[in-house]
Amino acid sequence: MLVIAGIGLFDLRDIPLGLLEEVKDASAVFIETYTSVLPGFSVDKLSRLLNRQIIQLVRAEIEDKGAKIILEKAKNEKVILLVVGNPLLATTHASIIIDAYRLGITVKVIPAASVIDGLIVSTGLHAYKLGKIVTLVFPEDKELKNYPYTPYQTLCDNLSRGLHTIFLLDIRQEERRYLLAPEAASLLLKIEEKFKENVLDDDTLAIAVARATADNEQVYVGKLSELAARDLGEPPHTLVIPGLLHDSEIEFLYYKTGTAIGVFKDWNKKLSARIMQRNT
Amino acid sequence: MLVIAGIGLFDLRDIPLGLLEEVKDASAVFIETYTSVLPGFSVDKLSRLLNRQIIQLVRAEIEDKGAKIILEKAKNEKVILLVVGNPLLATTHASIIIDAYRLGITVKVIPAASVIDGLIVSTGLHAYKLGKIVTLVFPEDKELKNYPYTPYQTLCDNLSRGLHTIFLLDIRQEERRYLLAPEAASLLLKIEEKFKENVLDDDTLAIAVARATADNEQVYVGKLSELAARDLGEPPHTLVIPGLLHDSEIEFLYYKTGTAIGVFKDWNKKLSARIMQRNT
Repeated sequence: MLVIAGIGLFDLRDIPLGLLEEVKDASAVFIETYTSVLPGFSVDKLSRLLNRQIIQLVRAEIEDKGAKIILEKAKNEKVILLVVGNPLLATTHASIIIDAYRLGITVKVIPAASVIDGLIVSTGLHAYKLGKIVTLVFPEDKELKNYPYTPYQTLCDNLSRGLHTIFLLDIRQEERRYLLAPEAASLLLKIEEKFKENVLDDDTLAIAVARATADNEQVYVGKLSELAARDLGEPPHTLVIPGLLHDSEIEFLYYKTGTAIGVFKDWNKKLSARIMQRNT
Repeated sequence: MLVIAGIGLFDLRDIPLGLLEEVKDASAVFIETYTSVLPGFSVDKLSRLLNRQIIQLVRAEIEDKGAKIILEKAKNEKVILLVVGNPLLATTHASIIIDAYRLGITVKVIPAASVIDGLIVSTGLHAYKLGKIVTLVFPEDKELKNYPYTPYQTLCDNLSRGLHTIFLLDIRQEERRYLLAPEAASLLLKIEEKFKENVLDDDTLAIAVARATADNEQVYVGKLSELAARDLGEPPHTLVIPGLLHDSEIEFLYYKTGTAIGVFKDWNKKLSARIMQRNT
């Protein structure tokens, strides 16, 4: 039996109680932390809490070897795989589950708070106003010549419907490289320069969250060009380009970040004008 | 100080460990359960776990009275408000936080797994392929004469982009009335009959989840008209009209529900044809 359990966003705070029960009769506990980063978390602390040895897996052991170590064991014993956030937000884990099903292994998944949950809690943005979510990856050399068009197109699409766009930012845990919100802001501006479809500009409103829900969380509201020059500290970061903001979203962000109400109202005005123009 | 903490989806399993810490020095613990329903949960069980009295609030105490009882206390003491799922998925809780900020009260939010997390875990649908989320409410007498157009329009919009549409279903906890997925399927068919814009029909593919992630979870895949005649048991239910399904989403659902691969392939074909037609 394979149990895949989320451990949430931050430290040991978000660990679901049910996990403590599951661990009791499991023969092995694995963890993979290469798809995400948790501020304040350490495998040692978790190991002490669970009173169990935890085997840490690297990307190659899961992606190249198809999580063989885990699945072989899960055929005859109860094995737990711990993952950051909500287990199925990363498609890697869906693949492991499908492989387990193929082998006739029983699968149980324990959900936990995801990066999206953290973002909603930290910004007060309404879940009902989220458009399609996109991932921004590091612009590698080859990609520099061929900037990613999809996130840009999705942003355009979401904005034209007045919806918020969440940019999940690349994490290369094993190289200790994390795409931070300021770098992501520069990247978006460079993508605009490349495609010139007037999707965004220096003045586009951005909401960046660093270390969502952690004690040292930072929520930043400002122009993309200002964000690009900002230091928001350690990862993980998330970036949002808001759509039309509801009064209660504005008020939440005003109290949370001290950003003047006028900044949001101006953005709504600018965006409404644009939506009207596009639709006529 | 006000702490708003999510308790997740099911029983005591999803309670975040951090809550046990927070409760220790809190002067009062409140819970509101009128926005959601948790299978297998009882306030008594939670009360025994936390070893604390838990004060249960009804809708009127929060919505009409603006959570006065809680906020008055939170001015000088540490007060905890427990909510089902992820705290900010329901806009009610954002309002309480804004009111707390207005009164100068410090607010801390502890995230937990939401209904969306549960849905992703139970269906293997990719978070990246979710379109705008909508809520379907009970068609009351006055609304019967005036069927809700917005969910129908959003579905049309999402489908034309190949994205999945999640329908969150009305919960009237205090009247013990829950909109179930089969009833929601009938409702969608009636809305089509009313507006006749060819957004859906009897054969539209539906994915319904009853009691996501609970031990007696049921995931149903089939035509809307078949779902309408089905009994999936107790609430909570969620309904999805899928967009274009990725191979790994298809495989996940095939193993999970036993639905033939052809059903999904046919849906993708039908939907692709429609998207092409609309775009030409």
